[in-house]
Amino acid sequence: MNKKSSTPTMKDVAREAGVSLGTVSNVFNGAQVSESYKIKVEEAARKLGYKVNRYARGLKTNQTRTVAFICPGTDHPFFGDLANYINKALLERGYRMMLAITQYSLDMEQKCIQMVTENKVDGIIALTYNPDLRIDPGLPFVSIDRFYSDAVPCVSCDNYSGGTLAARKLIELGATKLLFFNIAPDVPGEPDKRQYGFESWCRSNGIPFESLISSDSLAFRPFLQSIRERIHDGKPDFDGIFCNTDKMAYVVCQILKEQGIRVPEEVQVIGFDGTNMFGDYLMPCVSSIVQPVQDMAETAVSLLLSSDKSQIPTLTCLPVHYRAGGTTREAVKLDYIYGTEDREQGRSNGK
Amino acid sequence: MNKKSSTPTMKDVAREAGVSLGTVSNVFNGAQVSESYKIKVEEAARKLGYKVNRYARGLKTNQTRTVAFICPGTDHPFFGDLANYINKALLERGYRMMLAITQYSLDMEQKCIQMVTENKVDGIIALTYNPDLRIDPGLPFVSIDRFYSDAVPCVSCDNYSGGTLAARKLIELGATKLLFFNIAPDVPGEPDKRQYGFESWCRSNGIPFESLISSDSLAFRPFLQSIRERIHDGKPDFDGIFCNTDKMAYVVCQILKEQGIRVPEEVQVIGFDGTNMFGDYLMPCVSSIVQPVQDMAETAVSLLLSSDKSQIPTLTCLPVHYRAGGTTREAVKLDYIYGTEDREQGRSNGK
Repeated sequence: MNKKSSTPTMKDVAREAGVSLGTVSNVFNGAQVSESYKIKVEEAARKLGYKVNRYARGLKTNQTRTVAFICPGTDHPFFGDLANYINKALLERGYRMMLAITQYSLDMEQKCIQMVTENKVDGIIALTYNPDLRIDPGLPFVSIDRFYSDAVPCVSCDNYSGGTLAARKLIELGATKLLFFNIAPDVPGEPDKRQYGFESWCRSNGIPFESLISSDSLAFRPFLQSIRERIHDGKPDFDGIFCNTDKMAYVVCQILKEQGIRVPEEVQVIGFDGTNMFGDYLMPCVSSIVQPVQDMAETAVSLLLSSDKSQIPTLTCLPVHYRAGGTTREAVKLDYIYGTEDREQGRSNGK
Repeated sequence: MNKKSSTPTMKDVAREAGVSLGTVSNVFNGAQVSESYKIKVEEAARKLGYKVNRYARGLKTNQTRTVAFICPGTDHPFFGDLANYINKALLERGYRMMLAITQYSLDMEQKCIQMVTENKVDGIIALTYNPDLRIDPGLPFVSIDRFYSDAVPCVSCDNYSGGTLAARKLIELGATKLLFFNIAPDVPGEPDKRQYGFESWCRSNGIPFESLISSDSLAFRPFLQSIRERIHDGKPDFDGIFCNTDKMAYVVCQILKEQGIRVPEEVQVIGFDGTNMFGDYLMPCVSSIVQPVQDMAETAVSLLLSSDKSQIPTLTCLPVHYRAGGTTREAVKLDYIYGTEDREQGRSNGK
């Protein structure tokens, strides 16, 4: 868009400001410069309409201060949150984020990696499902929720202890016989550990439980059947369900209601993720084991940009917590509706 | 990361493939090249480990094939969807998306524009609130939901007809006296037209209605008060509410339930946006006027990348539609729970 002849250069800025070219360079690269020089340079740049050309800089320094985040889609609240917090963490460190969405396609994951590599990013953070993903060993890469090899640091929540916590919480809240529901994943991943934690805790505490893992091609029908079979004379023979995700927990609550079972009076349900409706943490959609999404984003960014790569853990699991959301037997408060001035500010915009 | 000495160049690829430099350039720039040449060049590039350097190309062509999307945050479902579809539309056209999140800060909006401009993007799509935003007239810019000037094309849904549709739908479904609830925005925007459409339809059809516009600093308390004042002997003196957003509709339903009013039996509620839980369009959270998010994204991208800028409309309003979501008096079906093989595929991943 700019004509070469009329575009001011760093040299023009140096001349206008009456300082050396090195000083101008230092100012725009964020190096230590005395405040008076900084003001002179910035004023000169403003006057001339000089703009930093990060493309030219990218060629010279081999650094673009751009990081790619590859993820299945920002339409799912967990991924939307993750993109949001990774973006925030990068901006705070002076980095920009390139977003590449794979629409859950394994092929697309590989294509996205090629695309962002061509674009010379400084590193990649990715949430992918392709177990055979080819990753350029020369490019910093942090994986979320999928362990590839010791060479690729992986960040996830502590899925195992989350499963443990769900079982313990259901029992504390009065449940006595538990179910675990999951849709079997195509490829193994860190979230599988939720089941192991749940089952291990039940076994070591003598709690009766059953696990139902459905293949995804049958969708939710097996859970409906399983629930139907366990209702005798209108009463369920179970009183607590842990579901591998909030989405599944939400659907299971709909199925229970449809079958005339009251949630949470007769059956309590806990999901996993910590999904907030409308991005508002005061509006959970089910009781849930909450993933520390912001901490996961911060950690992924820190690991990626760390200058010392010698001490990077291969797997970092961050602590989860439990949050009531109306499908367990705590008193549900509507406090969030009123007096939420601070949360509402700046959001009064039709959203 | 790459050492200059060991990095293969386009010349090396041309030599390896036995073709001219121009042919190699044509292949990587997507120009018309015979298939046999294309294969030769791609094989040579793979063999040498040659990677297109889009930074270098960006300098030469003054085109980076990167578009920035500036938005308040992907944590809100509407913005998460929008980012998702804009990304998809750009990828399909061979463009990458840089995402810049403003966290609803007017200052940050200006900073993001500066940041992405420095990074030499080919254009900007933005959903911003700052009425005084300074936009570089030389850089293609498409605004979503906010009209700036005739020089900046704006894309939104047809908010006015959406307000009309909400009123008509409530009446068709048996409501007789309507309320409109909104939290007043700080700056005017396209979504304001929802109210105008709603009120205009009620007036011209002789439907009694009242509008309550609250200032955001009071959050949802005024709506609670308004609802309380309108309940006499346990019966509300209204039977339909149109809320400016799905979030507000969801909260209003909670308030009504808290006050002992049954939704949708006694009062029907319609929101605006078409928020899907879990990014799944089969799980709406309230009955709603649905924004055509994908069409809006496609249109914004098409307008931005259009080579003929002479015939670009200043405001493009895309049609909305109504969708039942459990807070209006249609039979609610749970079909979506079962037999949804196609929607579940590729999503069996713990999400």
